[in-house]
Amino acid sequence: MFYLIGLGLGDPTDITVKGLEIVKRCSRVYLEMYTSILGCPQEELETFYGRPLLLADRDLVEQGADEILSGAAEEDVALLVVGDPFGATTHTDFILRAKEKKIQYKVVHNASIMNAIGCCGLQLYKFGETVSIPYWDETWKPDSFYDKIKLNRLHNMHTLCLLDIKVKEPTPESLMRRRKEYQPPRFMTVAEATQQLMTIVEKKDALERNTILNELSLCVGLARVGHDSQSIIVNTLREMSQTDLGGPLHSLVIPAKEMHPLEVEFLQQYATLKLEDYNH
Amino acid sequence: MFYLIGLGLGDPTDITVKGLEIVKRCSRVYLEMYTSILGCPQEELETFYGRPLLLADRDLVEQGADEILSGAAEEDVALLVVGDPFGATTHTDFILRAKEKKIQYKVVHNASIMNAIGCCGLQLYKFGETVSIPYWDETWKPDSFYDKIKLNRLHNMHTLCLLDIKVKEPTPESLMRRRKEYQPPRFMTVAEATQQLMTIVEKKDALERNTILNELSLCVGLARVGHDSQSIIVNTLREMSQTDLGGPLHSLVIPAKEMHPLEVEFLQQYATLKLEDYNH
Repeated sequence: MFYLIGLGLGDPTDITVKGLEIVKRCSRVYLEMYTSILGCPQEELETFYGRPLLLADRDLVEQGADEILSGAAEEDVALLVVGDPFGATTHTDFILRAKEKKIQYKVVHNASIMNAIGCCGLQLYKFGETVSIPYWDETWKPDSFYDKIKLNRLHNMHTLCLLDIKVKEPTPESLMRRRKEYQPPRFMTVAEATQQLMTIVEKKDALERNTILNELSLCVGLARVGHDSQSIIVNTLREMSQTDLGGPLHSLVIPAKEMHPLEVEFLQQYATLKLEDYNH
Repeated sequence: MFYLIGLGLGDPTDITVKGLEIVKRCSRVYLEMYTSILGCPQEELETFYGRPLLLADRDLVEQGADEILSGAAEEDVALLVVGDPFGATTHTDFILRAKEKKIQYKVVHNASIMNAIGCCGLQLYKFGETVSIPYWDETWKPDSFYDKIKLNRLHNMHTLCLLDIKVKEPTPESLMRRRKEYQPPRFMTVAEATQQLMTIVEKKDALERNTILNELSLCVGLARVGHDSQSIIVNTLREMSQTDLGGPLHSLVIPAKEMHPLEVEFLQQYATLKLEDYNH
């Protein structure tokens, strides 16, 4: 049997009891930590589980499905992922590869940023399409996520913005060489994301700026959701672009313009601005 | 300390290790099971935890915050909820009540239908606003959820439809009496939900029917997500309205018209129709 097990978001004890029982009895257990990260290193997980883990890095997950799934028809093999197994397309694809090989699979669900984001008090059912904000470089500055935020705002939906993670990215220079060299890991901060968003907002015409999204619009910056050190701040885009929320991972929410009184009351805990009647 | 602990979706072992440790050491532990249900009875949870639970029914949760929170400034009290603590407005409100009373709180996240719905293979980030489909009666047939599904379809987003749950609803006749009597619990099925949806679709004009949503549109029926007996079926609205998915809870997804090839490949596992090039 092949098991895809979600680890949740925080520390080793965020695994479910069901997940832990499976981890303990599997022949091989792989740990995937490049589409997201936990708040603890691999060694801490190994100590807690009382067993060694095989690190499944980007190369192994994207090209090594055969290796990971090998023998899973006869023995128990698990792949551990941060959050919930259906959070990343990579994992959905993995299940299809298992099916192709006629390997039975089971999924153990857990919290992921897609539902834990409710911790800021904005109601989950009112979120529209989720966007990803990618790191810009000198030549590549995609801004299509802005149109999705705009559409959500126009129809009074909140937007969760997932911020870019660069783990085990080959350096451009090494791509041509036999031996890849990797860039140091980078995790986009809320400040970086809001700076990029402000750049886009400034490019758009004045009318749109004033009605849909502008530098005075509210946003929610979240860091380390589900960890003991979780931090949430509510402020304007302009102020948020100068705010340091500490270590990774960060997430950003652009709330709908009209919020329920309970949502406003909840967000107010994290704001210095008076949110009642705030309308930008 | 007041703890709000998510139980996940399936059986007692879906609680996290962190959640279980807290449950074991609390002075009082309440179990809320009217906004959703687990796949097991209260007694099974009590046996697994090795401790008694206090049932927090609708009346106690909505009017008894004082009772549940009583003493939580000095001792540990927990409220267990199905799924994740931020899945229902009631629980968000509970946290605000704790804050008012200057009671510290902690949340233990878990999977909820809002992220576990990814099990059908549709990508979570492409879901738009979530809708709730309420039971109709002779005089009250609300259909505002249809406009939200339509908006999501127009902008190529999937829609998760949460189906009505009636637990501990007073009978209309008993509302005037001193002693309330309750209706038997009811859980809306995928068949009932699609029947209501078909009724709305038939009322709309022919043009709209043909382009946005009609009886040949695809939908995904899900039952008991996260349980061992989980069942997923992909079919047209018309066929789904005649399909029995077994015991509760049921959920329904109306996919976007354009899907990613990986989404189509995943859904195909649950369909007898050929989904490639299907376009209704």
